[in-house]
Amino acid sequence: MPVLLAPEQAPTLHELLAKANTIGLDCKPVDTSNEPAPRIRGLGSLTSAGPAEVSFLSNPKLQGQLDDCKAAAVIMTDAVYQTLQPESYSYRVVLCSQPYLMYALLAQWFDQHRIDRLETGIHPSAIVSPTAHIADGANIGPFCVVEEGARIGRGTRLGPHCVVGAQSVIGDDCLLHARVTLYHNVVVGDRAILHSGSVLGADGFGFAPDPHKEAGAWAKIAQIGGVVVGNDVEIGANTTVDRGALENTVIGNGVKLDNQIMIGHNSQIGDHTAMAACVGVAGSTIIGQRCTIAGAAMLSGHLVLGDDVHVSGGTAITSNISKPGRYTGVYPFSEHTQWQRNAAVLSQLAQLRRRLRSMEKNTQ
Amino acid sequence: MPVLLAPEQAPTLHELLAKANTIGLDCKPVDTSNEPAPRIRGLGSLTSAGPAEVSFLSNPKLQGQLDDCKAAAVIMTDAVYQTLQPESYSYRVVLCSQPYLMYALLAQWFDQHRIDRLETGIHPSAIVSPTAHIADGANIGPFCVVEEGARIGRGTRLGPHCVVGAQSVIGDDCLLHARVTLYHNVVVGDRAILHSGSVLGADGFGFAPDPHKEAGAWAKIAQIGGVVVGNDVEIGANTTVDRGALENTVIGNGVKLDNQIMIGHNSQIGDHTAMAACVGVAGSTIIGQRCTIAGAAMLSGHLVLGDDVHVSGGTAITSNISKPGRYTGVYPFSEHTQWQRNAAVLSQLAQLRRRLRSMEKNTQ
Amino acid sequence: MPVLLAPEQAPTLHELLAKANTIGLDCKPVDTSNEPAPRIRGLGSLTSAGPAEVSFLSNPKLQGQLDDCKAAAVIMTDAVYQTLQPESYSYRVVLCSQPYLMYALLAQWFDQHRIDRLETGIHPSAIVSPTAHIADGANIGPFCVVEEGARIGRGTRLGPHCVVGAQSVIGDDCLLHARVTLYHNVVVGDRAILHSGSVLGADGFGFAPDPHKEAGAWAKIAQIGGVVVGNDVEIGANTTVDRGALENTVIGNGVKLDNQIMIGHNSQIGDHTAMAACVGVAGSTIIGQRCTIAGAAMLSGHLVLGDDVHVSGGTAITSNISKPGRYTGVYPFSEHTQWQRNAAVLSQLAQLRRRLRSMEKNTQ
Repeated sequence: MPVLLAPEQAPTLHELLAKANTIGLDCKPVDTSNEPAPRIRGLGSLTSAGPAEVSFLSNPKLQGQLDDCKAAAVIMTDAVYQTLQPESYSYRVVLCSQPYLMYALLAQWFDQHRIDRLETGIHPSAIVSPTAHIADGANIGPFCVVEEGARIGRGTRLGPHCVVGAQSVIGDDCLLHARVTLYHNVVVGDRAILHSGSVLGADGFGFAPDPHKEAGAWAKIAQIGGVVVGNDVEIGANTTVDRGALENTVIGNGVKLDNQIMIGHNSQIGDHTAMAACVGVAGSTIIGQRCTIAGAAMLSGHLVLGDDVHVSGGTAITSNISKPGRYTGVYPFSEHTQWQRNAAVLSQLAQLRRRLRSMEKNTQ
Repeated sequence: MPVLLAPEQAPTLHELLAKANTIGLDCKPVDTSNEPAPRIRGLGSLTSAGPAEVSFLSNPKLQGQLDDCKAAAVIMTDAVYQTLQPESYSYRVVLCSQPYLMYALLAQWFDQHRIDRLETGIHPSAIVSPTAHIADGANIGPFCVVEEGARIGRGTRLGPHCVVGAQSVIGDDCLLHARVTLYHNVVVGDRAILHSGSVLGADGFGFAPDPHKEAGAWAKIAQIGGVVVGNDVEIGANTTVDRGALENTVIGNGVKLDNQIMIGHNSQIGDHTAMAACVGVAGSTIIGQRCTIAGAAMLSGHLVLGDDVHVSGGTAITSNISKPGRYTGVYPFSEHTQWQRNAAVLSQLAQLRRRLRSMEKNTQ
Repeated sequence: MPVLLAPEQAPTLHELLAKANTIGLDCKPVDTSNEPAPRIRGLGSLTSAGPAEVSFLSNPKLQGQLDDCKAAAVIMTDAVYQTLQPESYSYRVVLCSQPYLMYALLAQWFDQHRIDRLETGIHPSAIVSPTAHIADGANIGPFCVVEEGARIGRGTRLGPHCVVGAQSVIGDDCLLHARVTLYHNVVVGDRAILHSGSVLGADGFGFAPDPHKEAGAWAKIAQIGGVVVGNDVEIGANTTVDRGALENTVIGNGVKLDNQIMIGHNSQIGDHTAMAACVGVAGSTIIGQRCTIAGAAMLSGHLVLGDDVHVSGGTAITSNISKPGRYTGVYPFSEHTQWQRNAAVLSQLAQLRRRLRSMEKNTQ
C-alpha cells in the first residue's frame, strides 16, 4: 500500500511547495481558486492520485492522462499548461520547469517525514561496545551490535539487527535499514542509505594453490584491506561489497548501487556511477565517473573503464574501455525453435567465413 | 541429513495415505501381506529409501530402480504395477494415478509435522509495538521486531530475527523462516512461505539527474509506494522485491519465486507464474499468468509479457512478448578455443551478409 | 582502511617468518643490516606498503615497482633478488621460492591474530536450546539462536545474529561471520568459513502441477532432504545452498564459493572446486573435483560435469561436460551501434548458411 499521511499531519499544497523552493527549484501554483489550498497526504501517478494527493507530468507520452486525473494538484511545465482547455480539469496546476526533479524532492519530503518520526537514541536491546562512539542524535535500533572502536555519526539511524564491526566508521545522517552488516575496518561517508541484507567488508575471493596439501587444494589469502565508501552513496538490498586483499575497495561519492550487486575486492567505483540490480564486478576493476551499468551486466576483473561509459543490461565486459559511449553484447532472444536453428550456426561461423572467402576468390 | 521422524512419532502407512485421500487423491495399498502395516519415518528416492521409508516412481526412466528398492512401500501407477514380477520385490505397493503429486503431499505432511511441533506465542525476546496486532495462534520468534501498526494473521509463524515494518500486514498461516525483512507498508496474503534473507519493500532504484549539484549527481526519488503479495506465494532465500515508486509492486496469487531473484519496483507478476533462481526483473515490467522464467534470465524494464510465456535460462528479454510459447536467447558454449574462433566472426556478421548478397548478385 | 596491528602487538620480521617456516615453506631474510629487525604491523602491496609493513613480488609484471617500494621488507624469489642493484633499495629482502603462497600465509597470520582476540563463550543475549550442544572453547555471539539438538564444535565462532536450526551440526574451528543462517538438518564440517547473509538449507525449488486447484496452480514439494558441507569450505556473503528434496545437497571438501552464488537442491560439488561470485547452479547438477567456475556463469539442472572443467565467466552450461578443459559461451561486447548491426544478422544465420550452400553448389 502506498504511504499516505494522516489528514492532520498533511501539509497544505503551499507548505509543501515552499520546501522545494528553498533548494532553488522554481515552482508556483496557478491559483485560480478562492478555495483554501488542499492538504496533501501523498503523491500519486496521474492515473492513481486521489483528491488528497499531488501528481506530476514529466513524460510527454502520458499527457493524455491529464484529462481524467483526479489529483488535488498536478505539477507540469508551462508549455503543457498552455495546452490545457479551461474547465477540462479539476486539479490545481503547479508550474515547474523540472517536474520530474520536483516530484523527486516532494517524494523525499514525504519519506523523510516518516523517518523523522522514528525514535532516536540507543535501543535498550542493542549491544554497543564501551569503546564504540555513538554521536548525539544517532539512533541505534533493536538488537544492533556495534563492536569495539566503531564510530556512528550524528543523525545516523540504524534499523533493527544492524552489525557494525570493530573499528568501522559511519558518517553523519546515514540511514541503515534493518539488517545491514559492516565487517571490521569499513568506512562509510555521510548521508549513505544502506538497504537490508547488504554486506560491506566480507572477504574478497582470494586463494593460492597450496602445493603442500592434496592436489587442487587452496590456501586462503586472508583479506586484510578494508572498504571505503564516499558520501551520498546508496547501496541496495542484499548487495555485497567485499573488502580489499591488501588495500581498500573504494566506492566513490554519489555512487548508487541497486539490489543484489556484487563488487569484488580491490575494485574502485568512480563518483556518481550508477548500477542497476544484479550487476557483478569482479576484483580489481576500476570504473570511472558517471558510468551507468544496466541490470545483470558483468565486468571481468582487473579492467579499467573510463568515465561516462554506459553498459547495456546483460552485457559481459571482458576488456578495457577507454572511450565514452554505450557498449552492448547480449544474445537477442527469439522463439525457441528459431533460436535453435540459428544458434546452431554459431559453431560454424569461422568455417562459413572461410567458405565465403574461398567463393569470393573463385568468382573474382 | 534428510529428516526422519522418531519411530514413536511415525504414522503407519495407512494413516499416512488417509491424509492424501482426504484431498481427493485416489491411492490404495495393495495389501498382500498379513503383517501389520509398517510405520513410515520418512520419504526417500528409490535408491535411498530404507525399510522405514516410503518411495515413489513417477519418472518412467527410473523404473529399473524398482528391483533393488529397499523402501517399506513404493507409490506407483497401476500400469507400472502390472509389470512387476511377483516375488521380485519386498516393498508394499501403493497404487496411485498421480505418484508425483502424491509424493508432494506426503512430503508436505512430513514437513508440516515438523513445523507443527515448533513453539507458538510471542517469544519473550521479541519486540512488538503496542500498536501492532498479533492474532491468536501466531508465533513470533526470538529477536523478531514487529513495528507500529503491523498485523500478523492467525497461525502465522515468524522465525528468529524477522522484521515486520510499520503498517505492514501478513495474512494467516504464513511461514517466515529466520531473518525475513518486510519494510513498512508491505502486504502479504495468506499461506505465504518466505525464506531467510528475503527482503520485501526495499526502495526501488529511482534517481533523477540533479542539475543543482555537480555534474552527474543524482537526486533520490523516494519510493513511497508499497508491495502487495497475494495468497499462496513462496519467495526464496535472499530474494528481493522492491517497493513501488508511487504505486505498488504486485506479486499475484500462487506465484513461486526461487532464491536470489530481484523484482524491480512497480512490476506486476501474474498468478501462478514461477521463476527459478537468479532471475532479474527490472522495474515496471508486467508479466502474465502461468509464465515460467528459468534460472538467471533477465527481463528489461517497462515490458509487457502475456500469459503462458516461458523464458529459457540465461535469456535476456528486451522487448514485449504477447504470444504464448517458449523464448530463448543464450550463447551456446563450446570449448574455449572453438568459441574464440567463432565469436570473432560475430563482429563481422553484417559485413558477411553484405558480401554474400554481393556475390549472389554477381553470380545471378 | 586496511588492518594494522598496534605497534606493541606487532611481531618482528623474524618472528613473523618463523610462523611460515613451521609449515614447510622455505624463506630466509637476507640480513645485510646491523639494525634490529623491524616490527611488522601489516602487509601491503609494493606501492602501498609503508615502513612498518612487509610486501611481496610474485607477478613479474610488477617488478618495476620494486624501485620505489617503501616497505620494511619484500618477499621475492632468489632470481629476482639477483637482479637488484645494491644501494637501489632500502627494504630488507626475504628470499622465498613461493612469494605468493608466503604472502597468503602471512595474511592469514594477521587475520587470525585479530580473530584470536575476540571474546569466547556464549554471549548472555544468545538463545541456546537446552538440547543443543556447544563444545568447550566455542563462541556464540550476541543474539544468536541455536535450536534443539544442534551441535557446535570446538573452537568454532558464531558472529552476531547467526541461526543454527534444529539438529544441525557445525564442526570444529569454523568461523561464522555475523548473520549466517542454517536451517534444520544441515551439517558443516571442520574449519568452514561462512560469510554474512549466507543461507544453508532453505527449501529447494520444487513444485508439481496441482490439477485439483485452478489452472496453473502449483503444489509444493516439501524439501525434506538436508545439506552436507565438507571440511575446509568457504561460503561467501549472501550465497545460498538449498536443501535437497529427498536426499542431500553436497558440498565437497575444500570447496570455495564466492558471494551471491546459488546452489540448487540435490546438487553435488566436488572437492576443491572453486566458484566466483554470482554463479548459479540449478538443481541436481553434479560437478567434479578441482573445477573452476568463473563469475556469473550458470549451469542448468541435472547435468554432470567431470573433474578439472573450467567454465568462463558469464557462460551458460546447458549440457554435460566430460572432458577437462576450458569452456566458454559469451556474447562479445562492442559499441552499441556495431552490436545492433551485427546482432540483427543472428536471426538470419540459418538462412545465410543455406544461401551460401546454394551458391557453392551453383558455382561448382
